[in-house]
Amino acid sequence: MPSGRGRSRGLKLAVIGGGSSYTPELVDGVIRRAEELPVRHIALVDIPEGGEKLDIIAGLTRRMTERAGLDIEVTAGFDRESAISGADFVITQFRVGGLAARAQDERIPLKYNVIGQETTGPGGFAKALRTIPVAIDIARDVERLAPDAWIINFTNPAGIVTEAITRHTSARCIGLCNVPMSMQRMIAAGLGVDPRSVKVDFVGLNHLSWARRVSVNGVDVTRAVLSHELVRREFDFQHVAGTAGARSARTTGAIGGGGGDRGNDAGGGGGPYGTQGHSAARDAAHTPGLLDALGMIPSYYLRYYYFHNILVEEEKRQIQEGRGTRADQVMAIEKELFKRYADPGLSEKPAELSLRGGAWYSEAALACMSAIYNDRDEVHVLNVPSRGAVPDLPDDAVVETNCLVNGTGAHPVAQGPLPDSIRGLVQHVKAYERLTVEAAVRGDRDIAYLALLSHPLMPDACTARSLLQDILRANARYLPSFAKASRDT
Amino acid sequence: MPSGRGRSRGLKLAVIGGGSSYTPELVDGVIRRAEELPVRHIALVDIPEGGEKLDIIAGLTRRMTERAGLDIEVTAGFDRESAISGADFVITQFRVGGLAARAQDERIPLKYNVIGQETTGPGGFAKALRTIPVAIDIARDVERLAPDAWIINFTNPAGIVTEAITRHTSARCIGLCNVPMSMQRMIAAGLGVDPRSVKVDFVGLNHLSWARRVSVNGVDVTRAVLSHELVRREFDFQHVAGTAGARSARTTGAIGGGGGDRGNDAGGGGGPYGTQGHSAARDAAHTPGLLDALGMIPSYYLRYYYFHNILVEEEKRQIQEGRGTRADQVMAIEKELFKRYADPGLSEKPAELSLRGGAWYSEAALACMSAIYNDRDEVHVLNVPSRGAVPDLPDDAVVETNCLVNGTGAHPVAQGPLPDSIRGLVQHVKAYERLTVEAAVRGDRDIAYLALLSHPLMPDACTARSLLQDILRANARYLPSFAKASRDT
Amino acid sequence: MPSGRGRSRGLKLAVIGGGSSYTPELVDGVIRRAEELPVRHIALVDIPEGGEKLDIIAGLTRRMTERAGLDIEVTAGFDRESAISGADFVITQFRVGGLAARAQDERIPLKYNVIGQETTGPGGFAKALRTIPVAIDIARDVERLAPDAWIINFTNPAGIVTEAITRHTSARCIGLCNVPMSMQRMIAAGLGVDPRSVKVDFVGLNHLSWARRVSVNGVDVTRAVLSHELVRREFDFQHVAGTAGARSARTTGAIGGGGGDRGNDAGGGGGPYGTQGHSAARDAAHTPGLLDALGMIPSYYLRYYYFHNILVEEEKRQIQEGRGTRADQVMAIEKELFKRYADPGLSEKPAELSLRGGAWYSEAALACMSAIYNDRDEVHVLNVPSRGAVPDLPDDAVVETNCLVNGTGAHPVAQGPLPDSIRGLVQHVKAYERLTVEAAVRGDRDIAYLALLSHPLMPDACTARSLLQDILRANARYLPSFAKASRDT
Amino acid sequence: MPSGRGRSRGLKLAVIGGGSSYTPELVDGVIRRAEELPVRHIALVDIPEGGEKLDIIAGLTRRMTERAGLDIEVTAGFDRESAISGADFVITQFRVGGLAARAQDERIPLKYNVIGQETTGPGGFAKALRTIPVAIDIARDVERLAPDAWIINFTNPAGIVTEAITRHTSARCIGLCNVPMSMQRMIAAGLGVDPRSVKVDFVGLNHLSWARRVSVNGVDVTRAVLSHELVRREFDFQHVAGTAGARSARTTGAIGGGGGDRGNDAGGGGGPYGTQGHSAARDAAHTPGLLDALGMIPSYYLRYYYFHNILVEEEKRQIQEGRGTRADQVMAIEKELFKRYADPGLSEKPAELSLRGGAWYSEAALACMSAIYNDRDEVHVLNVPSRGAVPDLPDDAVVETNCLVNGTGAHPVAQGPLPDSIRGLVQHVKAYERLTVEAAVRGDRDIAYLALLSHPLMPDACTARSLLQDILRANARYLPSFAKASRDT
Repeated sequence: MPSGRGRSRGLKLAVIGGGSSYTPELVDGVIRRAEELPVRHIALVDIPEGGEKLDIIAGLTRRMTERAGLDIEVTAGFDRESAISGADFVITQFRVGGLAARAQDERIPLKYNVIGQETTGPGGFAKALRTIPVAIDIARDVERLAPDAWIINFTNPAGIVTEAITRHTSARCIGLCNVPMSMQRMIAAGLGVDPRSVKVDFVGLNHLSWARRVSVNGVDVTRAVLSHELVRREFDFQHVAGTAGARSARTTGAIGGGGGDRGNDAGGGGGPYGTQGHSAARDAAHTPGLLDALGMIPSYYLRYYYFHNILVEEEKRQIQEGRGTRADQVMAIEKELFKRYADPGLSEKPAELSLRGGAWYSEAALACMSAIYNDRDEVHVLNVPSRGAVPDLPDDAVVETNCLVNGTGAHPVAQGPLPDSIRGLVQHVKAYERLTVEAAVRGDRDIAYLALLSHPLMPDACTARSLLQDILRANARYLPSFAKASRDT
Repeated sequence: MPSGRGRSRGLKLAVIGGGSSYTPELVDGVIRRAEELPVRHIALVDIPEGGEKLDIIAGLTRRMTERAGLDIEVTAGFDRESAISGADFVITQFRVGGLAARAQDERIPLKYNVIGQETTGPGGFAKALRTIPVAIDIARDVERLAPDAWIINFTNPAGIVTEAITRHTSARCIGLCNVPMSMQRMIAAGLGVDPRSVKVDFVGLNHLSWARRVSVNGVDVTRAVLSHELVRREFDFQHVAGTAGARSARTTGAIGGGGGDRGNDAGGGGGPYGTQGHSAARDAAHTPGLLDALGMIPSYYLRYYYFHNILVEEEKRQIQEGRGTRADQVMAIEKELFKRYADPGLSEKPAELSLRGGAWYSEAALACMSAIYNDRDEVHVLNVPSRGAVPDLPDDAVVETNCLVNGTGAHPVAQGPLPDSIRGLVQHVKAYERLTVEAAVRGDRDIAYLALLSHPLMPDACTARSLLQDILRANARYLPSFAKASRDT
Repeated sequence: MPSGRGRSRGLKLAVIGGGSSYTPELVDGVIRRAEELPVRHIALVDIPEGGEKLDIIAGLTRRMTERAGLDIEVTAGFDRESAISGADFVITQFRVGGLAARAQDERIPLKYNVIGQETTGPGGFAKALRTIPVAIDIARDVERLAPDAWIINFTNPAGIVTEAITRHTSARCIGLCNVPMSMQRMIAAGLGVDPRSVKVDFVGLNHLSWARRVSVNGVDVTRAVLSHELVRREFDFQHVAGTAGARSARTTGAIGGGGGDRGNDAGGGGGPYGTQGHSAARDAAHTPGLLDALGMIPSYYLRYYYFHNILVEEEKRQIQEGRGTRADQVMAIEKELFKRYADPGLSEKPAELSLRGGAWYSEAALACMSAIYNDRDEVHVLNVPSRGAVPDLPDDAVVETNCLVNGTGAHPVAQGPLPDSIRGLVQHVKAYERLTVEAAVRGDRDIAYLALLSHPLMPDACTARSLLQDILRANARYLPSFAKASRDT
Repeated sequence: MPSGRGRSRGLKLAVIGGGSSYTPELVDGVIRRAEELPVRHIALVDIPEGGEKLDIIAGLTRRMTERAGLDIEVTAGFDRESAISGADFVITQFRVGGLAARAQDERIPLKYNVIGQETTGPGGFAKALRTIPVAIDIARDVERLAPDAWIINFTNPAGIVTEAITRHTSARCIGLCNVPMSMQRMIAAGLGVDPRSVKVDFVGLNHLSWARRVSVNGVDVTRAVLSHELVRREFDFQHVAGTAGARSARTTGAIGGGGGDRGNDAGGGGGPYGTQGHSAARDAAHTPGLLDALGMIPSYYLRYYYFHNILVEEEKRQIQEGRGTRADQVMAIEKELFKRYADPGLSEKPAELSLRGGAWYSEAALACMSAIYNDRDEVHVLNVPSRGAVPDLPDDAVVETNCLVNGTGAHPVAQGPLPDSIRGLVQHVKAYERLTVEAAVRGDRDIAYLALLSHPLMPDACTARSLLQDILRANARYLPSFAKASRDT
């Protein structure tokens, strides 16, 4: 429980980026958990540019809570400090630069045949540079105005942003991603068992994690899951590369996928890499051996490592064919969504929201907050400082792994040394992440260059340099501390 | 769940050292948890020297389960292999050399003004040398005959024995001690709150652990507990040293105490250091400062470090006054207990058992087994390999800390680096423990010498040498691999 | 000193791969150091397929030592055991599969647009699989027949092979590469100072190391070296990519280059990436920023990481233009060399040998052996187990760094934690190396797959899989333990 | 070389605590090394209370350098800043509170049957509290006024003081002790070989180190040294405990001894534990087993751990018999020494200085400075941050081990993990040291209490508390930041 207060007078939630299209999902979760999590105040806050959206969301939020018969105060505005003051939970789901910036993040790397992705690779790097200074500002407000509050951070890249906050402020912060819960639910569905009987042990970093063990009622079924058709299909080269035939047979929501997460959804119900075939891949062998050799189930985003070149080709073709990147698609979806949200007759989460991606986002967030508030000893997969949980990384490195969650916070379960098969990649990406945090905090071009260079997907130093120049130029207005970057070096 | 079998046909428990006076406590726990833990077979096994006791216990066990209306097969005998075959849980509570060996362990060190204690110091070292080879033999049987079973080890020194098993065999083994649960219950009683609302975070080694945080319903109350009268009294020098007046006012079962654990109880209801005054201590200042400076609640056995010399004096006076050591007292208690147990009219755990010590032992054991069997995500304080949980120790070092317990075992929660205030002592004792395991496994005198020398309570090398000679001589019949030790070096 | 013997009766050197074209270089070094290193016996050993070459080398060796007036017994044959028996130093410079296998190593990866290089990437991986089982066999002979001898390993990939030996045998082994000494000499030349006044601190792995500090007479001149024209040119994109004009102006032997090492020379005097222009690179910006940002001087082989794609293009063009790979060129050079060697009139190292690459190889080897034999406290850059020297890696991981060399061996100087800018890459490559060792030792395809997949230059899992299949097929006769690999999986 | 200046114009040495009786030894060393270490200025600085001594020393220094025909400017005064300005080496050999404070340090612990020793145990703790704030002030001056200078710290406890400086300032600092060089020379003498042929590998902390390997001309002779009479005698219980007969036969300067170091000499030529018999020890067995079991040669000060109780008795008897503690003896020696120093006819180091202790101090200091100035790659045993050299300790923990010394400083050689037999003790003492540094820097009583409590020689918390009170009271005038300590807690 963030403080004794909440217990007696009900909880205050501050939502930074309250005008997001995801907010109704979150509100829906609040309503469903009303008995165990007595929210009395939802304070939505956004920036003036998002004022119109914020109004729409605030209206819908009020109609939803009223229809549910709940006595929840809903406020909305641009004053972050008053929203944070006295909050019990501060939910961060903002997006610096909006979807337009994301569209750039997705496009710029493709020019160099590097994946253009919201969180993985140079796209995530650009997003981190824009986001970290703002996230730290928010955390400083929390330190001051609500020191017992928990920041529940969804803002992507969630692991890097959480590490920036936990290493540079004293605010209490937990990073949250919907991928682990999505995988757990999909595995349960694939096995045809009650999700409550399925435990999945994850280890790694955000968007770079592996399920090392799956058990059903305590019985280890990892090998069975590894050879399950759903898992195979996700990591089948032919599937990844796609052929028209293969694709059409594909069911959405396969294990490990099921859409991306809030603020960084990788592709909603449809998957991030289009639906059409790819002739170049036709002769390629499939790679069932990968899963057998690993003995672990890679999470969805690991495709950007394991199938990098193929996905680059897919992305490029998708753009060529006029389908745009995921950001483009999301912009269209959002436009429709906000039309629906604005309907005064609407007082429930509309079905169309599921197209937006972020499955299980609200469930993951509310479950975590409830476990804290009610001091339950529950297990959730979260992003927190390692403290030895992954002994191959520094103790203050944020990792994504199973955590014991109760009233004193989220405590990672010790994982032991990583197997060689994934250790190098995890350590490499973590080095990139730490350099990225440092570059963002200091506004230092040299460190930013070293960060990009340290990314395992970077083909070489020349590409890193060009990409850095492009990224700094394209994002100049969001990177005041890199002002000097406008000069060509 | 140790195996799929248990679920359908009920569980088999093998109890090594089944003739122990504690067994009725354990059986009582089985009866109380019958609904959640469907035991179908209790296989008691002991050595021929304990045959008579074993018969008495088996009879009482049968009367108890019958009275409870449970259909549980109770077998008893000397054939360890058949008892272990097909077991789901193997509970180890044997005592090599019996209480007579313990009495020696308690007396020998006092000759050198070193504490004589069942688990701490040279007494625990002697017990470890006798116990480890047998424990490893048992674990090898489990590897072979019940590879999916969990060994629940109570045999002391529980941490060292568990480390010997986990480092030298592939058997699944969890070490268990009743001290953490006793402390948690006493804190709850002291605070006057429901024990279920109290969470205590422990870190350290078995019988060398500290409660770093106490929370009630998620609210941190550590400072309040540290200044609570019960805790203060336990770590008040005047109390420890005792005066007749101070002692008479003492309530038993203070925080951190409440008796020792099974196979290594430190003093039952009465405390290990007698009830009479000690003139030399009369002028000494009390040490409330210790608790304030530490900011943690030391567990009961840390007195042997924090108040070593005073307790040595107490032990010596106790012997001088004819009260004997704890082993002597326990022998008398056991004699009476077995008389009671043999009564055919007795079909319940007798009240006198509480004098034996080991409060909460059965509760701790059954709760742990139930959490495994039912694949619950519960938190118990157990002894398991660190795997990074305590990053100041090797990954394979067994630590005592909060663990997440479910169907796949007991997983320690990452604790982060230890504070300087306890790190040195923990690392020092761990080095002693590792040398002790190695000495016992190899039967190597030189390593045994280095082990004793590495114990922080050892005043010097000469004492260590004399103590080693005394210990090896006194235990020669239990240390065949040290046979060469009979020659004086 | 490997043994007391050497001192009184002179030293015995066993040279495994004695028929190598490099041997005259080594013999030249022995002659130059005759006073400080009293060699009495050179035992050349090779395999029957190399019998003819071995005879030629043995003859030249005898003529050289005679001309120098030294009383050194020169033996040559196929009996490895008798060569190793009683040796003081065992120099390993063999090449399993010869240059023909190397030519394959260089070509196969290019098919997938991955660098084809003798030691870096899939080429080095293939060489490691062929070499490790033989290297371990040799080390087992040394354990048995010359337990006090030092193995001086030049066989590439030198770091991986040395790690295989040190982790899987108890033989004393030091890995040696000529790159660090070449860089040190080139820096001295570039600065125009006496090489004896120049100290360079290296850290990393073999062929993946950085010079972190350069001092002249104790004064730190690192920044000056980083901005020196020679260094700049080596890491100037335009230079790497080359234009006819730029190339023609290039002096050979620039800092960080100067040819490769024995058994893995990267290109002798000519550099590995040809001498002709490359139109695609014409517009690319140069990257002086890399050196400034790093603040360290990358060693030569880091180009395969920092300029990967460009060098792949160069390699492919070179083949297309009929110039072949480096192996092809070396084969031609060797043919000429052996013609010269066979000349009974030749009794000195011929000048043409310098074309072969491996500058400073003999100097580095002899200096190291002399420092051991004479128990000098000298500093050499060698490949040895880390033992904490690079705390970011396991203690038994072989690293390439400054070592104190004296009669008890080569002791790495502690380097402290690596900077983030290189740590991730080093850890990633080390994970690849460890998997490679394990795959080679066990003959395990799955681990081999994970090894390739863990290489940072691998674009994706599909490429790794195809490459593995190609490599296992092409090397089947050298990989008996992978026999099962012949079946297509 | 600390700076380019020194090379052209000669070196400036600042000596803090210039009025020490040791200074003539240091000056003698400067004269002997005049050719390789061109000193042009010796700036002696002391506090006004030591003004008279300073004048005497300055006079003698001038006479000594003149007689040697060297053109060295000698200045003396109380202005630390001007002495440090432009210095190349800053030698710290001051003693806060003088020998009177030392006498207290030696006596206070004995009251509690804890060793009273200048550097080990509570005596060293008290000295550290007095010294650290001053040492850090000096280092801050060096940061500002001579940023390229090296502080060569002899002030005891040398390891703790060096750690305080290196962790709390950016000054370059090397801690130096004469014990390792003394041991190396004594071993050479014992073996009857040229000291230049003898290499000794040390590992541990200052005054808590072990010689792990001794080699002569590269041949490992450790076992021979371990069984050598000289070493045996030092670690023979009978000898340590002493009998009149045994003592009279003792030669001074045995291996591992040879007197203490400057500012913390443990007993000059006579040994710290008197020369008379000790009846209680008569029957005790000797402990040759200790050396065999360890396989290492403990340094002199480890007796305070390995023979603690015996040495406490010796100390107490010595005082009882009116011989005083070592400080009392040194005060008498110094009185005589300064009489000699003041003699205008004296222009050489007088023979009587050898009684003062600190053998090899000047040699060790000058050799280290010369290796730095001349950029030699020499090996010296020094106190520097570990940086992974001892992986069982934090990277910034100061350790005492073999270092490569050249123009860029002193670089510890990686030692690998410590053996279990010493690891616990080293880690325990290091935890004490870190708490001591923190207590001194912050002036925090609670941390000071935890520091004492964390010392392995502390029998219990009550003793720690009483000792702390006594120490804080006795040293109140030297501990302004502990001012609050004057209140009894």
